[in-house]
Amino acid sequence: MAGSSFGNIFQITTWGESHGVALGVVIDGCPSGLPLSQEDIQIFLNRRKPGQTKISTPRKEADEVEILSGLFEGKTTGTPISMLVRNTSQHSSDYSEIASYYRPGHADYTFDAKYGFRDYRGGGRSSGRETIGRVAAGAVASKLLSQFGITLTAYTKSIGPVSINMSSFDKNAILETPTCMPDRQASLQAEQYLADCMKEYDSVGGVIECVIEGVPAGLGDPVFNKLDANLSKAMMSIGAVKAVEIGDGIEVASRRGSENNDSFHMEDGQITKTTNHAGGILGGISDGSPIILRTYIKPTPSIFSTQQTVNKNGENIEIAIKGRHDPIIVPRAVVVVESMAALTILDALLLNACAKMDNLLKIYKE
Amino acid sequence: MAGSSFGNIFQITTWGESHGVALGVVIDGCPSGLPLSQEDIQIFLNRRKPGQTKISTPRKEADEVEILSGLFEGKTTGTPISMLVRNTSQHSSDYSEIASYYRPGHADYTFDAKYGFRDYRGGGRSSGRETIGRVAAGAVASKLLSQFGITLTAYTKSIGPVSINMSSFDKNAILETPTCMPDRQASLQAEQYLADCMKEYDSVGGVIECVIEGVPAGLGDPVFNKLDANLSKAMMSIGAVKAVEIGDGIEVASRRGSENNDSFHMEDGQITKTTNHAGGILGGISDGSPIILRTYIKPTPSIFSTQQTVNKNGENIEIAIKGRHDPIIVPRAVVVVESMAALTILDALLLNACAKMDNLLKIYKE
Amino acid sequence: MAGSSFGNIFQITTWGESHGVALGVVIDGCPSGLPLSQEDIQIFLNRRKPGQTKISTPRKEADEVEILSGLFEGKTTGTPISMLVRNTSQHSSDYSEIASYYRPGHADYTFDAKYGFRDYRGGGRSSGRETIGRVAAGAVASKLLSQFGITLTAYTKSIGPVSINMSSFDKNAILETPTCMPDRQASLQAEQYLADCMKEYDSVGGVIECVIEGVPAGLGDPVFNKLDANLSKAMMSIGAVKAVEIGDGIEVASRRGSENNDSFHMEDGQITKTTNHAGGILGGISDGSPIILRTYIKPTPSIFSTQQTVNKNGENIEIAIKGRHDPIIVPRAVVVVESMAALTILDALLLNACAKMDNLLKIYKE
Amino acid sequence: MAGSSFGNIFQITTWGESHGVALGVVIDGCPSGLPLSQEDIQIFLNRRKPGQTKISTPRKEADEVEILSGLFEGKTTGTPISMLVRNTSQHSSDYSEIASYYRPGHADYTFDAKYGFRDYRGGGRSSGRETIGRVAAGAVASKLLSQFGITLTAYTKSIGPVSINMSSFDKNAILETPTCMPDRQASLQAEQYLADCMKEYDSVGGVIECVIEGVPAGLGDPVFNKLDANLSKAMMSIGAVKAVEIGDGIEVASRRGSENNDSFHMEDGQITKTTNHAGGILGGISDGSPIILRTYIKPTPSIFSTQQTVNKNGENIEIAIKGRHDPIIVPRAVVVVESMAALTILDALLLNACAKMDNLLKIYKE
Repeated sequence: MAGSSFGNIFQITTWGESHGVALGVVIDGCPSGLPLSQEDIQIFLNRRKPGQTKISTPRKEADEVEILSGLFEGKTTGTPISMLVRNTSQHSSDYSEIASYYRPGHADYTFDAKYGFRDYRGGGRSSGRETIGRVAAGAVASKLLSQFGITLTAYTKSIGPVSINMSSFDKNAILETPTCMPDRQASLQAEQYLADCMKEYDSVGGVIECVIEGVPAGLGDPVFNKLDANLSKAMMSIGAVKAVEIGDGIEVASRRGSENNDSFHMEDGQITKTTNHAGGILGGISDGSPIILRTYIKPTPSIFSTQQTVNKNGENIEIAIKGRHDPIIVPRAVVVVESMAALTILDALLLNACAKMDNLLKIYKE
Repeated sequence: MAGSSFGNIFQITTWGESHGVALGVVIDGCPSGLPLSQEDIQIFLNRRKPGQTKISTPRKEADEVEILSGLFEGKTTGTPISMLVRNTSQHSSDYSEIASYYRPGHADYTFDAKYGFRDYRGGGRSSGRETIGRVAAGAVASKLLSQFGITLTAYTKSIGPVSINMSSFDKNAILETPTCMPDRQASLQAEQYLADCMKEYDSVGGVIECVIEGVPAGLGDPVFNKLDANLSKAMMSIGAVKAVEIGDGIEVASRRGSENNDSFHMEDGQITKTTNHAGGILGGISDGSPIILRTYIKPTPSIFSTQQTVNKNGENIEIAIKGRHDPIIVPRAVVVVESMAALTILDALLLNACAKMDNLLKIYKE
Repeated sequence: MAGSSFGNIFQITTWGESHGVALGVVIDGCPSGLPLSQEDIQIFLNRRKPGQTKISTPRKEADEVEILSGLFEGKTTGTPISMLVRNTSQHSSDYSEIASYYRPGHADYTFDAKYGFRDYRGGGRSSGRETIGRVAAGAVASKLLSQFGITLTAYTKSIGPVSINMSSFDKNAILETPTCMPDRQASLQAEQYLADCMKEYDSVGGVIECVIEGVPAGLGDPVFNKLDANLSKAMMSIGAVKAVEIGDGIEVASRRGSENNDSFHMEDGQITKTTNHAGGILGGISDGSPIILRTYIKPTPSIFSTQQTVNKNGENIEIAIKGRHDPIIVPRAVVVVESMAALTILDALLLNACAKMDNLLKIYKE
Repeated sequence: MAGSSFGNIFQITTWGESHGVALGVVIDGCPSGLPLSQEDIQIFLNRRKPGQTKISTPRKEADEVEILSGLFEGKTTGTPISMLVRNTSQHSSDYSEIASYYRPGHADYTFDAKYGFRDYRGGGRSSGRETIGRVAAGAVASKLLSQFGITLTAYTKSIGPVSINMSSFDKNAILETPTCMPDRQASLQAEQYLADCMKEYDSVGGVIECVIEGVPAGLGDPVFNKLDANLSKAMMSIGAVKAVEIGDGIEVASRRGSENNDSFHMEDGQITKTTNHAGGILGGISDGSPIILRTYIKPTPSIFSTQQTVNKNGENIEIAIKGRHDPIIVPRAVVVVESMAALTILDALLLNACAKMDNLLKIYKE
């Protein structure tokens, strides 16, 4: 209830701090019989691993996952899947100073306000390393969804002022560029922009888009657990996200109904939307079109230039943060967005199994 | 689990369809000893009642609340508070036609896909009338929060192309203008814009902003139940919302860290943020500054002009929707936004009671 | 979270006090497409209605259910089913006195300790009338289970010293005797015993047994949500229940393993247990045999003879309770036991739909 | 949702199989500021460790706990506490045979029915080793409760036909006798009885009682989350438990109300019950008296004598189980009962913090 769990049927619980012994996740509610290997998980974790490019922190972590339970002879058993990643590059000394003051843009002050004290080493539980558990679980969710033809593709849409050009969309580039942009030209521009930023001891924000294809119509619930509501929560629960859009998002607020409504028509015997302003969700329930969402991510709050703040003695002070920090959160967050989206869609897929008598009759009477 | 409940400690469950017998809500987990009257609820419900202005549906509903349980001698007892509102202006005949086809922008198709059939009278459970339960519960939450000096103010920020001017902000105007804009000049412009829209048989979208003041630092949880994550879900669960922003929202994605970080300084012996780009939440936990959020609402999908769609026989057809519909959802949704925000903040306030040993010692050892 | 909800997928929330306006229940998560009528509910409610026999309170209540939502054209829609029963025989004056003292065996003192005050009219939320919502929901659950060939039979096993003779088991007698005993001879003896009790201004306890047939093997989860664990909670949540047994229950504690293990053998091509000491559940999961459970119910605490207690001024006093009270809770609780068991089994049936990939493939790929 | 989590505010999630890599638990919702050491946990785990006496399995496991997160400088931080115990004595070969048939009294058949296959090594998730996570979490809960003067004492009440004599109650004996009986004389008799059983290749059941002292009046909720309902679920979720009693339990069913009601009287200015038939709970809420509960535990199903069963080919066969098994579950389950009770009481203590406005005012306005 303290909020380290996510999902209803496919429920994950993450744990661990950036500078503790390890971080991990327990998945409860994964159906039995899904083929799963350590490799399936590691591929996802490698996408968020630090120290891989010049635009990410030079801190190196192997981030090797250990699966501790829930598998037998290469398949999930239906019982909890526990996975952990040990911390290996812990330089707590990097953080000794920050115990005494509150870093702007960080959770230092709010943790102290909430808990009375905090593990000040590297952000503790509010570190980006907390997402390791999400990504490990997201790998399992993605594997399961793929059995039903559901695929997720997240990528960097913009970094600072540099946006991708949708007409140059190159899916392969997502995993091959350091920016995770699906546009190699834009990626080079963004890298240059980031290099300039770093020279100025500054950081920068950006936008991640996620497209989910193959989702059958009917997932999501009509009131509080609308599919878009759950996706929004999933996205906004990622540190540094400050806005979420579904489909055309903020654009719809300045539109007329006649512009914004998506007409239906028949296509190959299927009911199809002629446009997809709605982003694949109507009334909180998937409509069979691709689900499209965007998250807006703030610049890394750890910057090396001088900042004003307050210390624990209640004195105004000036600080300059040291340490090994990413100049931008976005590229490493792409797989986190994809993972959280996968977890949300999978949970809706499972919950929907009980939505109508017909589904139950297929299971229990055939 | 089918998603008609919201909240963890202060948990509400709503029920009812637009053209059924009644709609209502059960609140479980309201602390005992809160003074509460029917009037407290009715004031909130009156703010969303239809038929009050020329920019809302001419459909008239008394929307009178009946409190069925949970009060004794003017105070909450700690047991469930059940409230209902009977439907009185049900013209099911208005809807007989829509049983046979799927209205663009509505949940008709997705309900059929999910449940195999639907209550086609006026949207059933996906009607805006579903928010009656949210608003009745929001009235209770707001009353409780006010005991701790926490106040919520939601208002229309823009309608189509017409935005309020923050320098003309007039709080009283929120309840006095038909648009719920806190700027009488902008409101007149918006009314004119809406009148033009209606002549063209069209509808329009808009933006609602909500400011929450007096929230103590420390509410919200650091991982999945971040306060902003829960607020996002709360907002996106309102029908027609397609984007949510916290603080500066999408703006942060194109900023530098040095611009976006809010410095801390001491003010009257209190730690205070010099700016509030973060919108009152750091690391998912309230920081004591005002919490600021915006929701982007699509145009009413029910428009009177001709549209393309598909009927239940899988034929492409043309339709023109009849009935009594709002040309804009925004003004009547203002109190829904305020209510959902109140429910979210209150739940965080209650959950936070157990966050540290010191709190428990105050309750059990003093 | 204040505990008025039960179940995970098929989730019910009850509300209402004995002497308030009404009592009711909201069911969220009932699959769409189940044929359901008011009559289905009323039959169940009539089984717990007071004033029907000389061994129940002379207080008369019509207990007529009103279904407010969730049905359309005779079938469940998949959205919340809200039902209420208005209180009609409220003699609050009967209870004016008990505001000032704590009745032995009742929840008066503990409510005051928890909430700071209480609705003292007739027990408020801790009254037996609270079970109206459970029974209305139980009727829906039983109807749904019957579609899968699952039937529940609860009955009075003993009243005070009078037990039924299993060799005279007569299922029809359950609904025809005032004791709900499936043995007409034992029922007459029990009625005589109760008549004697009432003459002595006293009350008496008893035992209810419930047999659930047709449950497929595989329902329930292996750790905390064992099917027997959930059944125990369901039973012990009924006021006045002080013990619960599954299968042979307390007997097993004095047995040898060689006596207690149920052998498996093949019967008509099915794996079958030769005996059923386990009561149909192994490792928390149904094994296909009948599920058998017993609840032990204390005597009605409202007795007319003189008792010692304490008043609100902290003085030791003597009291003699007045009013219209059942001399035994058991017969009217039989349908409550059956209802709570149905709710528990149904929730397990629904949750189990997601236990293995094969089930999901049947729904989404066939 | 697959049932490996327990509790609402103080929520634990256990994972791991008897013959997997490790077993463990994640606690989410532990308040910050509780002093806690590895030693606190290890003391509890040592009480359930195998291989310590001649009446437990000769299988030796170090069962050393590793705390992976949630502590900083000797105190809980309010973030998840993850703990694991590695399996060291895994003789999977012991179990190779049981893959092919269903052991009577075990969950082999029901796991196969539910999941389509199972990890057949030593019971997998339904092994008694699953309780390691419960006990590690129970140690934390007990430590926290002790800060509020709440203590739990569980002990063996009977083994087969041998019961303790309450007049010889010796609390120290609980931790010093191999039976965990608080009566050294009875313990010797029980050891002799067990020795005889083992010679006959048989096993035996027994009874565990738990007394919880110092619980303030007011914990627990009045309807589905009655304190006794949650305790029953907690107990029945322990493998092999087949009955649960609160207070006088089954005895009350044959009593008169005049015998069973506990009178109130004033004692040292406190409202006190003169007797405690109710076992410390009235209307689902603690009444300030000691809470008393008993669990009835079946004989170990793994016995070495010959049994009838069925194999995976659907053939009737005879088997004789091999391996290293406890002849009785009871003594090692005593600390499991105590742990589950502690988890339940603590969760109620935390939830109750939000029951009345007065509590919140103490936290937020003082």
